[in-house]
Amino acid sequence: MKIIVIGASGTIGSSIVSALEKDHQIIKVGYKSGDIQTNINDPASIEEMYKKISAFDALICAAGDGYFGPLSSMTDANFRVSIDGKLMSQVNLVLAGQKYITPKGSFTLTSGSLANDPVPFATSLSAVNAAIDGFVRGAAIELENGIRINSVAPGVVEASPAYFPYFPGHIPATMHQVAQAYVRSALGAQTGQTYTVKG
Amino acid sequence: MKIIVIGASGTIGSSIVSALEKDHQIIKVGYKSGDIQTNINDPASIEEMYKKISAFDALICAAGDGYFGPLSSMTDANFRVSIDGKLMSQVNLVLAGQKYITPKGSFTLTSGSLANDPVPFATSLSAVNAAIDGFVRGAAIELENGIRINSVAPGVVEASPAYFPYFPGHIPATMHQVAQAYVRSALGAQTGQTYTVKG
Ligand SMILES: NC(=O)c1ccc[n+]([C@@H]2O[C@H](COP(=O)([O-])OP(=O)(O)OC[C@H]3O[C@@H](n4cnc5c(N)ncnc54)[C@H](OP(=O)(O)O)[C@@H]3O)[C@@H](O)[C@H]2O)c1
Ligand SMILES: NC(=O)c1ccc[n+]([C@@H]2O[C@H](COP(=O)([O-])OP(=O)(O)OC[C@H]3O[C@@H](n4cnc5c(N)ncnc54)[C@H](OP(=O)(O)O)[C@@H]3O)[C@@H](O)[C@H]2O)c1
Repeated sequence: MKIIVIGASGTIGSSIVSALEKDHQIIKVGYKSGDIQTNINDPASIEEMYKKISAFDALICAAGDGYFGPLSSMTDANFRVSIDGKLMSQVNLVLAGQKYITPKGSFTLTSGSLANDPVPFATSLSAVNAAIDGFVRGAAIELENGIRINSVAPGVVEASPAYFPYFPGHIPATMHQVAQAYVRSALGAQTGQTYTVKG
Repeated sequence: MKIIVIGASGTIGSSIVSALEKDHQIIKVGYKSGDIQTNINDPASIEEMYKKISAFDALICAAGDGYFGPLSSMTDANFRVSIDGKLMSQVNLVLAGQKYITPKGSFTLTSGSLANDPVPFATSLSAVNAAIDGFVRGAAIELENGIRINSVAPGVVEASPAYFPYFPGHIPATMHQVAQAYVRSALGAQTGQTYTVKG
């Protein structure tokens, strides 16, 4: 299969590439790195990326910025960092990508366990992660030609120790567990699902 | 209690007012109607509303615009009608309102059953409703002074027959069921909950 991985150089993205590159053609996409560069926050840049790649069988997105900070001083602009960086960026990958993906292809987006299992300072991410999971449920019943869509909701991952202090008592997911959730979505047959990954 | 109802003149809002007005002081807020007018899509207008009302014990929001249309032709701008009209509007009511609400007060937002139970043409609402429920879970563990926050997720309601064709086989919720979910949130003791209401 021809699989686009957005965020291929990242903590999670690089583990996804490792799990898939033996058996599949991987198009690595990043903001500055990779085979192709794009800015997923900009719909025009997304469209350009798809034009360069043309037909593909699966897209996996493991990129998306979020805002961390206390609710007590949060502003509309703070909250929109997560809306624009993590939600609309991934929604726009699907809205544009549905015109280029081959029949029976799949989209796999990244949300996060904060959707259902919040920690302080992450309110906008609880909202945005839940939105991605809701989007996936809605889009799954409208996408045509057997095209599937799922999300992966990682808890904090073992390769991101900087986040551990914000997640007391959370057991980090191993990179193998995380990567396999994306493999399951891309190579499996389910749609409209959210694969939550915890250690 | 002094209870602000945003969207008090609406299909759902008017049933909430009826259920609460015998025993509580209701401040009815609308875009054009009500005791006070505001535009919840504009953070400055929300701040003005709170300045006029000053301290209050509960806020219930039963307003919020969404976009209906097919996924196949949906644009970033279409999707953002729901983001701005239903998600950021209600998030901003909480971000600003946390400075005015009395200790042990409560916020009740409106999401919708589409978050988990999608129908065609409503993808952006599945996302945004899920986001509101996720926001409520996140905010519940950060709000201070015993302030609570919940959402009500109505299915299609019996007073909105124009929506029935889009919800085949869905049994409309009665206005009594819907109104009581808001009463439960505002007068109960739970926080971080989503009360789904179906007929
Ligand atoms: N790490 C965790 O513990 C964890 C847990 C749950 C969820 N998540 C979610 O998983 C996703 C990836 O996290 P990560 O920790 O793997 O991130 P990361 O290590 O910071 O990697 C980010 C990747 O995304 C690319 N990227 C950044 N901005 C981009 C843009 N505007 N357009 C296109 N590509 C862009 C980067 O490309 P360049 O290298 O070229 O700049 C890089 O490949 C995020 O949405 C995060 O919220 C992470
Ligand atoms: N009806 C249903 O079957 C159903 C089911 C599930 C969820 N919902 C959700 O419930 C909410 C209310 O729905 P509804 O059917 O009761 O709506 P509705 O009958 O159209 O009433 C809307 C109310 O909101 C006010 N409003 C509209 N725009 C506003 C703005 N920008 N700022 C402040 N107030 C504004 C209106 O005030 P004016 O009258 O002054 O203009 C009116 O009081 C919506 O979020 C909807 O998605 C509805």
